[in-house]
Formats: sequence, C-alpha cells, structure tokens
Amino acid sequence: MNRLETYSQLAIPADSRILYYVIDGLGGVPRIPGGPTELEAAKTRTLDRLVGEGSTGLITPILPGVAPGSGPAHLALFGYDPMETLVGRGVLAALGIGFDLRPGDVAARINFCTVDTTGNVVDRRAGRIDTSVGAPLAERLDAIELDGDVECFVRHVKQYRACVVLRGPGLDGRIADTDPQATGVPAKAPEARHSDAQATAALAAQFIAKAGEHLADQAQANGVLLRGFDTYKPLPSMVDLYGLRPAAVAAYPMYKGVARAVGMDVFAAEDGIDGLAKATRDAAVDHDFVYVHYKTTDSRGEDGDFNAKVKEIETADRVAERLLENDFDVVMVTGDHSTPAAMARHSWHPVPVLISGGPCRANAGGDSFGETDCLQGALGTFPSMDLLPLVLAQAGRIGKFGA
Amino acid sequence: MNRLETYSQLAIPADSRILYYVIDGLGGVPRIPGGPTELEAAKTRTLDRLVGEGSTGLITPILPGVAPGSGPAHLALFGYDPMETLVGRGVLAALGIGFDLRPGDVAARINFCTVDTTGNVVDRRAGRIDTSVGAPLAERLDAIELDGDVECFVRHVKQYRACVVLRGPGLDGRIADTDPQATGVPAKAPEARHSDAQATAALAAQFIAKAGEHLADQAQANGVLLRGFDTYKPLPSMVDLYGLRPAAVAAYPMYKGVARAVGMDVFAAEDGIDGLAKATRDAAVDHDFVYVHYKTTDSRGEDGDFNAKVKEIETADRVAERLLENDFDVVMVTGDHSTPAAMARHSWHPVPVLISGGPCRANAGGDSFGETDCLQGALGTFPSMDLLPLVLAQAGRIGKFGA
Repeated sequence: MNRLETYSQLAIPADSRILYYVIDGLGGVPRIPGGPTELEAAKTRTLDRLVGEGSTGLITPILPGVAPGSGPAHLALFGYDPMETLVGRGVLAALGIGFDLRPGDVAARINFCTVDTTGNVVDRRAGRIDTSVGAPLAERLDAIELDGDVECFVRHVKQYRACVVLRGPGLDGRIADTDPQATGVPAKAPEARHSDAQATAALAAQFIAKAGEHLADQAQANGVLLRGFDTYKPLPSMVDLYGLRPAAVAAYPMYKGVARAVGMDVFAAEDGIDGLAKATRDAAVDHDFVYVHYKTTDSRGEDGDFNAKVKEIETADRVAERLLENDFDVVMVTGDHSTPAAMARHSWHPVPVLISGGPCRANAGGDSFGETDCLQGALGTFPSMDLLPLVLAQAGRIGKFGA
Repeated sequence: MNRLETYSQLAIPADSRILYYVIDGLGGVPRIPGGPTELEAAKTRTLDRLVGEGSTGLITPILPGVAPGSGPAHLALFGYDPMETLVGRGVLAALGIGFDLRPGDVAARINFCTVDTTGNVVDRRAGRIDTSVGAPLAERLDAIELDGDVECFVRHVKQYRACVVLRGPGLDGRIADTDPQATGVPAKAPEARHSDAQATAALAAQFIAKAGEHLADQAQANGVLLRGFDTYKPLPSMVDLYGLRPAAVAAYPMYKGVARAVGMDVFAAEDGIDGLAKATRDAAVDHDFVYVHYKTTDSRGEDGDFNAKVKEIETADRVAERLLENDFDVVMVTGDHSTPAAMARHSWHPVPVLISGGPCRANAGGDSFGETDCLQGALGTFPSMDLLPLVLAQAGRIGKFGA
C-alpha cells in the first residue's frame, strides 16, 4: 500500500479546525554571511507568539538542492508526492480561473505576443497589454473551431495571459512549449513529446494558425505563444482522502487552481490584510481546513528587494493576527519555498515551519520564527509532503497503524 | 537488491554483545507548553550516564503523523520495514504463548464474551473472567472439530483472552474481525476480505457456532469474538539475516510473539526489576543480542497518569542499571513509540533513542535522556527501522559496501 493510501485509510473524522497559512517564498538567506534573513529581520509579533506555544522545524519542498515552482511546492504542502504528482501549468491556469475542466481535457497557457512581418517574435508579452485589451481578444479566440470532434475553449486570465482548453476523445497533452524564450526568432511549432500526442499537437498547430488569423488586425497582440500543455487527470481529493471540508483563500489564479485540483472550495480574496481576513472568516464558517495564501512576499523576493520583502513579511504577520480571530484548533504557518532577495528567484533552501495547537513538543532553542531558530525546532527538517499528515495528526485526524 | 538483503549481505560475524532495551511508550509531550515531558521529569541516573558516553537522537516509528500499534512499532525496531511487514495480532498472539505455528496456519485472537438470549453482545470481555475460568473453557474449545482436512487448535492466553489456529491446505487469513466494537448488537459474521479467503471464513463461522454450543452452559463466557485473523508467513529471521544469536526478555505475550516471529529465543520474565534482571542474566549467557522489554511505562501513559508514568520511567532506569551488570559492548535504549499521558494513547511523536559503546560521536548539546535534549543528538531524527543497522554497525557487525 502506498503512502497516500496508508494515510487515507488511517484518517479519522474529528471536529477540529485547521488553519494552513502559506506565506509565498517565505524562506530567505542573509544579505551578508552571518546576518539575518528577511524573516529574521522582520518584526513578527504574532508568528513569534505562535512559536512560543508550538513546535518549529524546516521543510524541504521537493529534493535537496531543487528550487521548486509554485505548483509542485504547493502540491507537496497538500500532502502529495511532488515527484509523482505533476500538474501542468495549463491545467492549473484553467482551474485557477474556475474553468470546469473534465478528465482528459488538454489545457495550455496562452501569452499574447507581437510578431513582425517576417514571423519573428519581437515581444513575448505583446507590450503587456491591459486586461481591457486582452479579455475581448480571448473572446475572439474562443470562437475558433478545430477539425474533427474536438471542442476548443479560450478563457482570459489577466493582461496578456489566457488559456486554451481542448476537449475530445484521445487527446494527449505531452506537447512542448511554443514560446522560444527569446525575441528576434520565430515561435516554435507545438511538438509532440510522445508519439501518442501527435494528433493533439497537430490540433494545437491548427489553433495557433487560426489565432494568428483572428488577431491579424492587432498591432501588439497579433500572435499567441503556448506553454504548459497538460492533460487533466483529477487528483485524489483532500475530501476523499481525509474527510476534510477544505477551503482555499487566495487572490491569484495559480493558487486557486492548485486548490481546486485537490478538492478545495475556493474563496476568492482581495489582496491585502482586510481582503484575506474577510475571505477567511467566510471560509471558516462551513470548512474545517482553511488554506490561506499570501503572495507578495515572493514577489518582493523575486524583485531582489530585501527591505521590501521584510516589510511584506511584517504585513503577512499582521494578516496572521487577523486570521487567528477565527476559532482554529491547530495553526500551521510556512512558505511553499524560499525566495531569497539576495538571489531574486526561487531557491532550494528549506522553509521555516511552525505548528501550534494540539500536543506540541518544546523546541530545543530559538523563540522566534526564523531560519536559524527553526534549526533547533522540535519538528526537525523533513519533506514538505509530510507536513499535512503531521498537522492532521496534531488535529486528532490520523488513527493508529496496526494493533 | 532491497534494503534488508543489502544489510544481510554486509553482515559480518563478531564477538560483540548488544543490549537492546525497549521501554514501551517511552516518548511523551509536556503537560503545559514548554514544560517537561514524562521522561524529562523523571530522574534517570543510569540512562543519563549512558547519554554522556554515547550518541542520542529520535526515531520515527512508521510515518510522520502516524501512531503505531506495538506490533509494527517493534518490527521496525527489529529492522523490518513496518509498511511491508504486517503481522496480524492473531499470529503474534499464538507465537506469544509459544504455540508452534507452521507456515500457512491461520490464527486469530479470541475474546470470550457474553451474549444475551436475543443474540446481542452485552459484554465484549465476558466480565473479564479470571484465568482460572478462561483456561478450562479454552480447553473445551480445543476439542472442536471442523469440516474437511482442517485441524483446529485453541489455546488460552490470559483471563478472557485466547487464540485459535486453523491448520490445513489452502487456508487464507484475510478475514474481517467479528468483534462489533459495541454492545447491544450481535457479533459480526467472519467476512472474507478477499475472494480466496471465503472457504476459511466459512470454517471460522463454523468454529464460532460450535464454540457457542460448547459454552452454552456458561452465564458470562457464552460466546466468542474473533479478531486479528492472519496467515502465518515466517519473516526472514535475525539469525539468518545477521548471524546473531538473539534473545528476548519479556513478560507479556505480544512481545514474546514478535520476538519469536523474528527468530529470537524467548526468556519469559517475571515483571519488575528482579524478574527482568534475572532473565537477562540467563539470556546473556548464550546470546549476543538481548532485547529486553519494559511494559508498564506504556500502561501508565495509556491511563493518562503523568506522575505514574514518571515513576515507571524511574523504575525502568533502575532496571537499566541491573541490565548493565552483564557485559554488553553496545547498549541501545529507546521506546517502540510515544504514549503521552496528556493524550492517554499511542502517538506519532518521535521517540528518544541512545546508543552507547562503539565509536560514538558527541551530541551538539543536551546531557540528559529526554525529548528536547535528543533533538541535539549526534544521531538526528530517523526512521525506527534504521536503528538496528546502526547498532549492528556500532558493534562491528556491518561490513563495507563496495570496494
């Protein structure tokens, strides 16, 4: 019996309520050797108080040395083995905007782009056109009809981003990106990465050609680049696996998408303290597991702005204070991955984690929430995918193995 | 090559002698956040001395968040992967009382119970009848004859508990418990959990019916409930795997059963300091690996009595002092799992472990045997099933891998 089946069979019902608070890109590294990380430099009164009442540790998102994307990092946080549970970005994008994907659908992300008269891509984001421009263009592409029994849906996401979904028999999403990742060269053809995907790749090529025709009157957004093709295969849901009533509070489509993929009810939040607090209050009414996502810590880390990330972490701390106004029995706080400002990108460094509530052991040292203090935490360093079972155990929701 | 085969091929003979001391349910959690656990509150002079001379750490019995039963927790301590090495309680019960199980036998535990005139179970333990009542009733049931080529053995275990063994061609123990886990309802029928087990399930039903006839004159013990059905498949023994001459010193049947299942010679001990000390002295004469089991720490934890568990740990410490009078080269002390008094049940929390003797590294901090100090131990936190190989290595009994 595999790991997930084991946990599922051991899951037991309980009245306990769980807050699962994910501060994106939380982990960092010092600006100077021996100095504080962003989290250590930030004043985090609420998180530090939770540390004093709980157990801390560090989590490794995927594998040692591997910086994760947000999709697999979140799947690991939700208890899935991220190496065995790849969900393509196209599927996450479609789920993220609430599109009703069906098993077997093939989805891909669309970037509108600018193509010159020789066919070379000159702007991979079509001058970052606004939503007011992008949305009606996506609607135009939704009218595209493809050969055979295949339906084609196009939905706008944000600004220059959209997604396309193909629906029909025998589709296969093992298709390479068409984005050349450079300008002054043509887009790539959508190439099948597996022989079973050749027919679907041909349909993708047909879609791209027809999109070019539909966009021919546009100066900026006159072409499309397709990325993150994938076939939708629903994951075993957290509802079925653990008997939870899980909810997600998130402002950004990607995170809503991952949440829907694992069976959560999604509460769209306005970004910021009040928005997250209000959506969490709503979600907590009828759900016993509430995942809350705080995004902009990661954004400032990606900007390489240490001080701005420190400020965002302090805001995330104030969000925590508001979230705790709801009546949770077990509270977990962590990040999906590290985004050190010093590196201006996702990194592989283990991420601080705290669990408060339920039967907690004392840490060996360290009374604030930070990378160095968490080294002395009672939870040790462990894979992200083991976090959810630990939290469920703390909440009295995992039974005994064997007699 | 799998893990166990690898260790077995690397095992080398040595004269070293190992004490493997398991204090049941040793691990705990604080009564109040930041306070001491039971082990931290206990005065453990001998165990603390061993920590000063050795390396400490923490072990995870099965999986993060999973509280183990004693059977799988012990199999992990003995080096077997507990997820792949399930041994049913019926088999452990039969082995525990020294019944000569043969491969293919199907064994189940029996609880005598009280059934009313409408067929409902009114007491699942038959008023906890004494051994003086239970033993002759088990002997009556041993006379039961079943259809076909199948032999049936019934042996008394203790008080209201017995076990039944079926022997014959083509038996299959994949049968569900008949214990309804409630009173005022009838016992369940013994249902096959696999189509190959239907014939055996029919024999079990026949046994239950005949047992009812044999017990019809009893006021209390007039029925039987069957649990923990399993087919006996011998495990690779520690003798064959590692060339050890292993012995077990235990007072309780379950632990004797697990020990026999892995090839140990069992030295039945009277409970208490002198009983365990004497049996260990006897066992150490002709054995180079002596597993000693101390039970009542777990019992007081299950009672939810923090102070009583502290006292039991202090007694277990005095037992350790006596065990060390024998000449062991490597001493290991741990528990099979945690049983925090605050939870009054087995828990998933990692269990303190110490290894003393052989080439030991210094711990980073912590000079007493306790959950928090062990966080800083040289061994780190690791799966229980890796403990035996580590101890064998300390005893010079694991050779080099590759050239």
